[in-house]
Amino acid sequence: MAKQARKKKVVVLGGGTGNFTILNGLKKHPLDISVIVSMVDTGGSSGVLRDELGVLPPGDIRQCLVALSSSDEYMRELMSYRFTNGKLKGHNFGNLLLSALEKSTGSFDKAIEATSEILRIRGRVIPATLDNVQLVAHLKSGKVVRGEHTIEYQNLDDLEKLVLDPVARANPKAKLAIKSADAVIIAPGDLYQSTIPNLLIKGITEEIRKSKAKKIYVCNLMTKKVHTDGYSVGDFTDKIEFYLGGKIDFVIYNNKKPDPKLVRRYAEKGERPVSPGKNLPVKKFVGGDLLGKKFPKPIKNDPLRRNLIRHNSDKVAEMIVSLL
Amino acid sequence: MAKQARKKKVVVLGGGTGNFTILNGLKKHPLDISVIVSMVDTGGSSGVLRDELGVLPPGDIRQCLVALSSSDEYMRELMSYRFTNGKLKGHNFGNLLLSALEKSTGSFDKAIEATSEILRIRGRVIPATLDNVQLVAHLKSGKVVRGEHTIEYQNLDDLEKLVLDPVARANPKAKLAIKSADAVIIAPGDLYQSTIPNLLIKGITEEIRKSKAKKIYVCNLMTKKVHTDGYSVGDFTDKIEFYLGGKIDFVIYNNKKPDPKLVRRYAEKGERPVSPGKNLPVKKFVGGDLLGKKFPKPIKNDPLRRNLIRHNSDKVAEMIVSLL
Repeated sequence: MAKQARKKKVVVLGGGTGNFTILNGLKKHPLDISVIVSMVDTGGSSGVLRDELGVLPPGDIRQCLVALSSSDEYMRELMSYRFTNGKLKGHNFGNLLLSALEKSTGSFDKAIEATSEILRIRGRVIPATLDNVQLVAHLKSGKVVRGEHTIEYQNLDDLEKLVLDPVARANPKAKLAIKSADAVIIAPGDLYQSTIPNLLIKGITEEIRKSKAKKIYVCNLMTKKVHTDGYSVGDFTDKIEFYLGGKIDFVIYNNKKPDPKLVRRYAEKGERPVSPGKNLPVKKFVGGDLLGKKFPKPIKNDPLRRNLIRHNSDKVAEMIVSLL
Repeated sequence: MAKQARKKKVVVLGGGTGNFTILNGLKKHPLDISVIVSMVDTGGSSGVLRDELGVLPPGDIRQCLVALSSSDEYMRELMSYRFTNGKLKGHNFGNLLLSALEKSTGSFDKAIEATSEILRIRGRVIPATLDNVQLVAHLKSGKVVRGEHTIEYQNLDDLEKLVLDPVARANPKAKLAIKSADAVIIAPGDLYQSTIPNLLIKGITEEIRKSKAKKIYVCNLMTKKVHTDGYSVGDFTDKIEFYLGGKIDFVIYNNKKPDPKLVRRYAEKGERPVSPGKNLPVKKFVGGDLLGKKFPKPIKNDPLRRNLIRHNSDKVAEMIVSLL
């Protein structure tokens, strides 16, 4: 029997739905995948669970677990099932599973481990930190905005600094995964609420800078009202490199114009396609048609249903794999 | 290799915590176990879920699944984990799992199947009916009391009839299990709220009467205020035989006096040890010291913790097995 090639080790950094798309594509390739998930979510079901039970935010972790699951479809549907009535309304079953496990085992880490087993996941899902932290924006005006969900509605033009409070310690498992990675991929997502929060953890950025892994950034398709209004691919990359404190090797971006009908619908929410800008160095900036043509089968009650302009997970994955 | 003896098929009928104790003992023996669970529960977490989500009551089913589970302890603890804060307060995680599965798969039967797989249970847990029914007591005064939980506080001295509304159809799986059973065991439990409701389903009692299985009744240890005040072993048996419409072959009862300190504590709630009564035919009535001496390790947040005078599940199981 031929000696099997070592699987390439890929670490995906993100939070929110960006991870989900990337993972759905990557998991079809023979890769050893670890996902590091930012832990600042205070919205929706996760926010309520943090408040009422004092648990860590489960929502983004759950999405990644579902993305990497190889269990039956009914289990994946169950994890994403959202209660629609009574006091449970708005709660996502997978979130309740993670929170109940965190409470009954006394550890979020064990909760993820147990859920990974139940869902038979391929790879590892790692919270960036196990500290209970809040995302806090300090503005030049002196104003302090506390909580990921609150920051969503905040103009950040005069942002002085973005911090985690208390100072977050990197999860040792996250550092270990980066240390042995062949590639670190920064997934698309809300720049200030999902992507950058991972880079606010000192142990994580240090480890990435030290690592010989290829650093790949998958740029967003659309800008976000107020936060990234008018940002080009270069602007997004600048911010990532600023918070990383180092250079990205490859930036993967979309250069195909989305359907004008969809663009108009997004424009109503103040969101526009990210422009590639001009004169991007081609060695570093790798463009392509990365738009999802047909929508994947939506998971019942899943917020992803709303995203109409989205990455084609297979194309993004292939582009990533071609760079490894 | 010697031909392996066919495992004896045992069907346990019950609801509530009585099942739990019996199953914990029986599962240590090489038996093929099916549990038929009464579906009238309207109390606690189950009641809220019925009301708010329109699901079938999951609580008793969950207890049986946990009893027959061969999965790791953390999974069994998770299933019995009860939320203690916020809007989730009082909900049992296992109940949420069953209800979310019922909603997401569209079938309570599939929900049980999936949970059985997750918990790697030995045996089968079968709802007596898949109809959404209520227990209703008609009193001679003309008063009608609706709902299992409401009946708890009701004097039933002038009970005219106890019915399920609407008329419940037996779950075909329950009938099938009884048809091929070597023994049908009626587990202890609240007589009017848990035990008899199973016997109100025509298809079930018909099948038991037709069956050649040994009919074994495990009598309660304690009476219940108002409902079974002053009942002896014979009185309990009479009621069971009345609702069954046929004879029991063996009645297993406790003849050991419980610790007077515990008896006093129960007396405050109007509950007293069930007296064996006099001149019980020894061929049918099988007495023994069936009291649990030391309490099994309580499951966190489990209501069973409160039961201080309880059956010794090993002794009851051994007595049952000796009768097969």
